[in-house]
Amino acid sequence: MAQNLKIIPLGGLGEIGKNMTVYEYGRNIVVVDCGVLFPDNSMYGIDLVLPDFDYIIQNQDKLRGIVLTHGHLDHIGALPYLLREIEATIYGTPLTLGLVERQLKEKNVLHRADLRVIDAKENIHLGPFHIKPFAVAHSIPDSLGFVIDTPVGAVVHTGDYKLDETPAGGRKTDLARLRELTPDGVVAMFGDSTNADRPGRTETERVVGETLDRLLAQANDKRVIITIFSSVLARIQEIMYLADKHGRKIMLTGRSLVDNVGLAQELGYLDVPKGILVDSDAGFPKEKIVVLATGSQGEPRSALNRMANGEHRQIEVGRDDLIIISGGTIPGNEEDVGQMLNKLFERGANVIYGAMETVHVSGHGSRDELRAMIETVRPQYMIPAHGEARHLHLHGQMAVDAGIDPDNVFILKNGYQWVTDGRKAWTAEALRVDDVFVDGRLIGEIGEIVMRDRHRLSQDGFIVALIPVDANNRLVGEPQIVSRGFIYLKDAESLLSASCDEIKKHYKHGAHKLQRALEDFFYRETQSRPVVLPRFIRV
Amino acid sequence: MAQNLKIIPLGGLGEIGKNMTVYEYGRNIVVVDCGVLFPDNSMYGIDLVLPDFDYIIQNQDKLRGIVLTHGHLDHIGALPYLLREIEATIYGTPLTLGLVERQLKEKNVLHRADLRVIDAKENIHLGPFHIKPFAVAHSIPDSLGFVIDTPVGAVVHTGDYKLDETPAGGRKTDLARLRELTPDGVVAMFGDSTNADRPGRTETERVVGETLDRLLAQANDKRVIITIFSSVLARIQEIMYLADKHGRKIMLTGRSLVDNVGLAQELGYLDVPKGILVDSDAGFPKEKIVVLATGSQGEPRSALNRMANGEHRQIEVGRDDLIIISGGTIPGNEEDVGQMLNKLFERGANVIYGAMETVHVSGHGSRDELRAMIETVRPQYMIPAHGEARHLHLHGQMAVDAGIDPDNVFILKNGYQWVTDGRKAWTAEALRVDDVFVDGRLIGEIGEIVMRDRHRLSQDGFIVALIPVDANNRLVGEPQIVSRGFIYLKDAESLLSASCDEIKKHYKHGAHKLQRALEDFFYRETQSRPVVLPRFIRV
Repeated sequence: MAQNLKIIPLGGLGEIGKNMTVYEYGRNIVVVDCGVLFPDNSMYGIDLVLPDFDYIIQNQDKLRGIVLTHGHLDHIGALPYLLREIEATIYGTPLTLGLVERQLKEKNVLHRADLRVIDAKENIHLGPFHIKPFAVAHSIPDSLGFVIDTPVGAVVHTGDYKLDETPAGGRKTDLARLRELTPDGVVAMFGDSTNADRPGRTETERVVGETLDRLLAQANDKRVIITIFSSVLARIQEIMYLADKHGRKIMLTGRSLVDNVGLAQELGYLDVPKGILVDSDAGFPKEKIVVLATGSQGEPRSALNRMANGEHRQIEVGRDDLIIISGGTIPGNEEDVGQMLNKLFERGANVIYGAMETVHVSGHGSRDELRAMIETVRPQYMIPAHGEARHLHLHGQMAVDAGIDPDNVFILKNGYQWVTDGRKAWTAEALRVDDVFVDGRLIGEIGEIVMRDRHRLSQDGFIVALIPVDANNRLVGEPQIVSRGFIYLKDAESLLSASCDEIKKHYKHGAHKLQRALEDFFYRETQSRPVVLPRFIRV
Repeated sequence: MAQNLKIIPLGGLGEIGKNMTVYEYGRNIVVVDCGVLFPDNSMYGIDLVLPDFDYIIQNQDKLRGIVLTHGHLDHIGALPYLLREIEATIYGTPLTLGLVERQLKEKNVLHRADLRVIDAKENIHLGPFHIKPFAVAHSIPDSLGFVIDTPVGAVVHTGDYKLDETPAGGRKTDLARLRELTPDGVVAMFGDSTNADRPGRTETERVVGETLDRLLAQANDKRVIITIFSSVLARIQEIMYLADKHGRKIMLTGRSLVDNVGLAQELGYLDVPKGILVDSDAGFPKEKIVVLATGSQGEPRSALNRMANGEHRQIEVGRDDLIIISGGTIPGNEEDVGQMLNKLFERGANVIYGAMETVHVSGHGSRDELRAMIETVRPQYMIPAHGEARHLHLHGQMAVDAGIDPDNVFILKNGYQWVTDGRKAWTAEALRVDDVFVDGRLIGEIGEIVMRDRHRLSQDGFIVALIPVDANNRLVGEPQIVSRGFIYLKDAESLLSASCDEIKKHYKHGAHKLQRALEDFFYRETQSRPVVLPRFIRV
């Protein structure tokens, strides 16, 4: 019996993060990527967001394997959580699996994974799926896209890519191989939409190297501190060569950077000039040192933010420092980054950031590159992926502009089941998939209700009114108010005593009506809406 | 006796907003501007932030007048609050004072102000201060900078400016007049630093007009919705001419836009083509309409955000709409704007935003313009103003690069007292100035403690533990837990009953120790730190 191919994004559509896609044919499932999402500012108190694993857990007997495009956390970071639930065989390049292995070890689930190293030219056969990788240029080495051959045709899963002609490390997106792998055409393309709102082409990584070279040449007798994403290993390699050229040692600070450099060196992805790494800059003149530090997003515990706060154990920032922020600011982090920069300037350092110099370029292709990819692949169906709604729609428009039938462009959401028999395509009833919040040790226990409460508490605080009553529900003493985050109670005696009068007036009508009356009272008096919770205490 | 000139910024240094500067000589004070700051995401539940007026209130007998540079809220928005405390004479151009008058009326304090209209060439004499305006190009018409002549020399207070050679409305920054007004040199420059981290020159407003013209020509049979700051009147003028040229009527939506257009028309700042404004687009084909709407920052109640949510009473957005976001995103608003854009795309509209087309340019000059201003003014002392610390420091560096002695560049903070006798300059002991938070009807009653509580509540919620005890402080019943924003209690029975056991174990050691024990308990169990408040109830 002829069967259909299903593509079900469990995460990564309508958001940038927690990428995870199900490919299903008959009783066979292959999953591409399994990442986390970093919470936005509306996700109060949340550490991480995971994709909803329910469909995978329910269908674990069908799972033939998990295939990884690259080692960024939005593509691999949820694996430790998935492996608490199921065992799995996981395929990826050496660097990707090196990063996965470290994560799984940390969470004590390594024994539940069967890690299989592949290279960029090695096909993987998983049931009816023949998965053929091609190299892509991205901001971490060893990144892949996949041609997934299925009985109903080939799907191109681009992964994260840019069409950089002069990438650091020299790994270009291999469009020639992509063409070779798809001699019979492509039924569907599942493509990276991250920069679908950026005109032109993303600047090449080579410009960053040239800029850093010039800045190091001009730095004279200053110490140079460069902040960088710890995964941008090709740029880290470039900085090592440049530091060597300019006669400077490199000190690493920030755990993820130390770990990643160690791992990459071990696996042969970094050529570390002999003797260049030092544990401390003590004893070296300023002009002989480059400090590589975490913190491009102003994260509270990152190395650069600790320097900004004067809390770094080894580095004290001052007039003799040139600091270079070699990382873009992720939307939502602007205020944290801005505060960190302010503090660094206040300590006397000079900081190069933002548009002042090209010290960072994106790892994702811009509109001209997305267009070129669409024209290379020429898919029958287009599924924009890896983006918020605006990016998906803009990417879809570009496919239409490139000649794809508008009816063949599918803007999906997480949980949608896209189905094709190779001749036509449709969407079947969507799965329900939720954001799974990680908050401390709690995974999935915090939901929308708690989130709404936290929002309201953040705006106006709370008031718990304790009302002593006897067995006949008669008031037998003064009500007590417990409150935080509303107003400073010591300054608000008259408001408090008026609220007690309000309680005496309304307590007989029961907790619900009393709550409403008190909410109205506080809104009338202050135009604020604290969370109000009356509690009767039987005395 | 020779006296000294003091410059005291009460707001606007170390922040972008609540600009307010004191010029003091002997028993004479002139204040330049009196604006609000819009809260950042760390100011939970705050509507507005005001400058600290204490110094003005204490010295109101010395106040000769308040002089306004232009009508943006970060320069005039705090006047209604100041006028609750004191009466004042206020000087500004017709548009600026028109905007002030409306604000004062709304807050019922108009009778406490004496509003005096000036034009760009009219000097103001206030005690020892001779205040000489010069025209500046900014994103609202009728903007001024000031040369403030004092007995110890002239100070240049630039106001907000760009050196646009082809501004909409034609009002350029009048550097020739600025030179004329300072024949004897300038003792100090107090200069706009907003874009001190942007290389080159800010693009000219003319490009925006050209882009909008082209987009309107290409819009064909689509309705065009343009979102814009309601104060960008020169661009609104341009859009009116363009709509007329392309045979479209204009519908305004959003209260501040309707108000500002009405006021500007009344005062003669807008030339409204006859019959172009319509109350509703009902009855007009889509291709005959431009909707001008508020909402470029994704503000919840703005017109465009209501359209995005399907809550606008007149406009339903869909496939036949081309939406243009003609406003930059203020840092901190990226997520709100992004969410709004996503919803508009999901409704089928096409949206042009960000870097896709030049549909917005800043009203502040970039580095080359700031440099040109420094070279025009050539002040003895440089005080970078109107910026966060990073902008002030970068602006100060530019002054040094332009040849000003580094010791003559003063990076001040709000409350600093900068003093000069015309030959040397120093800073006297700083005034203590606080952020004054407006939260609903509460002004200045919400302080740092409440803000810290709100932050903590937003992250992990709260737990109030009610512990019934008798007169001998012996437990006489089961403790009760009241909680919100921590976890969903109905799913957490075992945690709750364990916490009651913890209470029974520790309640005898008193409230303080019990609180610590419970905090430790919840952290141990959940890795979260809710606000914990035990209360003993005497039964």
